[in-house]
Amino acid sequence: MKKILLAGTLAFDEVTTPFGHSGRMLGGSASYLALAASFFDNRTGIISVTGYDFTDRMLEKFSSRGIDLSGVQRLDKHKSFYWKGYYYENMNRRDTLVTEVNALAYFSPRVPKEFRKPDLVVLGNLHPGIQAEILNQLQASPQLVVLDTMNFWMDNAKESLFQVIARVDLLMLNEEEARQLTGEYSLVTAARLIRGMGPRYVIIKRGEYGALLFHDDGFFSAPAMPLEKVWDPTGAGDTFAGGFIGHLSEYAQPGVEAIKNAMICGANLASFTVEDFGTKRLESLTKPEIEKRLTDFVRLTRYSLQEKVYE
Amino acid sequence: MKKILLAGTLAFDEVTTPFGHSGRMLGGSASYLALAASFFDNRTGIISVTGYDFTDRMLEKFSSRGIDLSGVQRLDKHKSFYWKGYYYENMNRRDTLVTEVNALAYFSPRVPKEFRKPDLVVLGNLHPGIQAEILNQLQASPQLVVLDTMNFWMDNAKESLFQVIARVDLLMLNEEEARQLTGEYSLVTAARLIRGMGPRYVIIKRGEYGALLFHDDGFFSAPAMPLEKVWDPTGAGDTFAGGFIGHLSEYAQPGVEAIKNAMICGANLASFTVEDFGTKRLESLTKPEIEKRLTDFVRLTRYSLQEKVYE
Repeated sequence: MKKILLAGTLAFDEVTTPFGHSGRMLGGSASYLALAASFFDNRTGIISVTGYDFTDRMLEKFSSRGIDLSGVQRLDKHKSFYWKGYYYENMNRRDTLVTEVNALAYFSPRVPKEFRKPDLVVLGNLHPGIQAEILNQLQASPQLVVLDTMNFWMDNAKESLFQVIARVDLLMLNEEEARQLTGEYSLVTAARLIRGMGPRYVIIKRGEYGALLFHDDGFFSAPAMPLEKVWDPTGAGDTFAGGFIGHLSEYAQPGVEAIKNAMICGANLASFTVEDFGTKRLESLTKPEIEKRLTDFVRLTRYSLQEKVYE
Repeated sequence: MKKILLAGTLAFDEVTTPFGHSGRMLGGSASYLALAASFFDNRTGIISVTGYDFTDRMLEKFSSRGIDLSGVQRLDKHKSFYWKGYYYENMNRRDTLVTEVNALAYFSPRVPKEFRKPDLVVLGNLHPGIQAEILNQLQASPQLVVLDTMNFWMDNAKESLFQVIARVDLLMLNEEEARQLTGEYSLVTAARLIRGMGPRYVIIKRGEYGALLFHDDGFFSAPAMPLEKVWDPTGAGDTFAGGFIGHLSEYAQPGVEAIKNAMICGANLASFTVEDFGTKRLESLTKPEIEKRLTDFVRLTRYSLQEKVYE
């Protein structure tokens, strides 16, 4: 069974969408990453930090799924990271109302012994210096290291960011971030430049339009599932990454064909996350539901010319 | 060999993009529709109108490809339809600088005898009353009638538009138009409402993100080819429709599986159109180039899980 090391935030989120107000709820990139990866056959550990307000009941949401929390520090003198956001009509635009860094400001990651030789790593959105420090603690080279980042670090920690990008196999970011990082509008050009910085693979996330993979031999396009109603888009990108790495953990080698399939599985899980506030839908989700929608995904993308043209 | 009837404009266009100025060039929906359809095995006729300034040399661009022009009227007292546009950086926004309706204002379509029982019909963007008049002149029910329209008609001829929508099998429109027509933001909801108006199929075009098909059994997503450089997006939607109907003309029945393949072929042709000004790239395009990129399209969309999941 493969070992997955996931780093990211465990946090409280609070969002207002056109459909209502969430109240304080479980959030943070590590939450979505780990819950999504837990639907696949693997051994997953989280590296993160919480404050005193992060309850045992919240931690049980992970431990009850067999997710290892020995890399999660709880700081008794601080509160957990807190983010409050407001989504405008149509969800394509959001404002951050409050960001309280809290415990995250004092985070000094410690990778537990059991996870120092992971097969797969996802470095969720964190300061690039922290992401690098996690890699420094590994004792063997993983099969695949995935890095997620945000435009905030491009503005505020560009040097560190370039350094960590050079050390990973796959960079995952959204369209706007790819353009900001490279100064190029064309995603083809942007991805080529990013691959020149180190990562063999680039995945550009496009929200409701799916995601694009750039690899040695070209591109791959994974669509998003068209949905009647998007309740709360928070966490969709992290769920995509979690489902992606989860599916990948079931392959012997994370080669390009496995990566394509993993993108579909990530998009599949993300389509559930947005159906309710925060992690709610992921928490109630069952494997049969996932498999049923995976069939819908295949229907969404399959056409008979594929067989005719492809050799 | 199937007969295709295409209705639309034959016009002069003039565009400025970040890469330069086109000068006066061949344009109009019927131009792109017919050139794109001509790469497939069929008998195509155009219904349109030109002014005295539309030269024989321009008409030869169609007749030399075996496209029938007996349904094209030339009005000696008027100039041809003329459109001048300006594309902003990134091509996602354009301004119309000049629209001269000219000969189009006097257009009274006459379907030639040879094309009164066509197998396939595309009613390109025209006044919905004109589109309906063309259907009135048909003497048998085609296998598939495709309607393209624009937000202009939603604002200015809503009643006529609804009447003609009710008479067609497939409505093709872009995201913004689907939302305006139905007042619904969700494309799933919008497509369901449109299908309730009559069309069995709805194709929502999403530019660089591809196109979505809504049919009896669900959805299908055709991606657009990621491109290094988009030179001029003018005509991409009409090229998509022309390649779509062209490929469809090679099937006995235009059922849902044929429609999916046809969307890929339409997207494939559209990816060439945007590589140069106006119809230039379509005019120089060869079948081997089309087939080569079709292989790229299949690579863009194919993943091994498709075979595993699909029964």
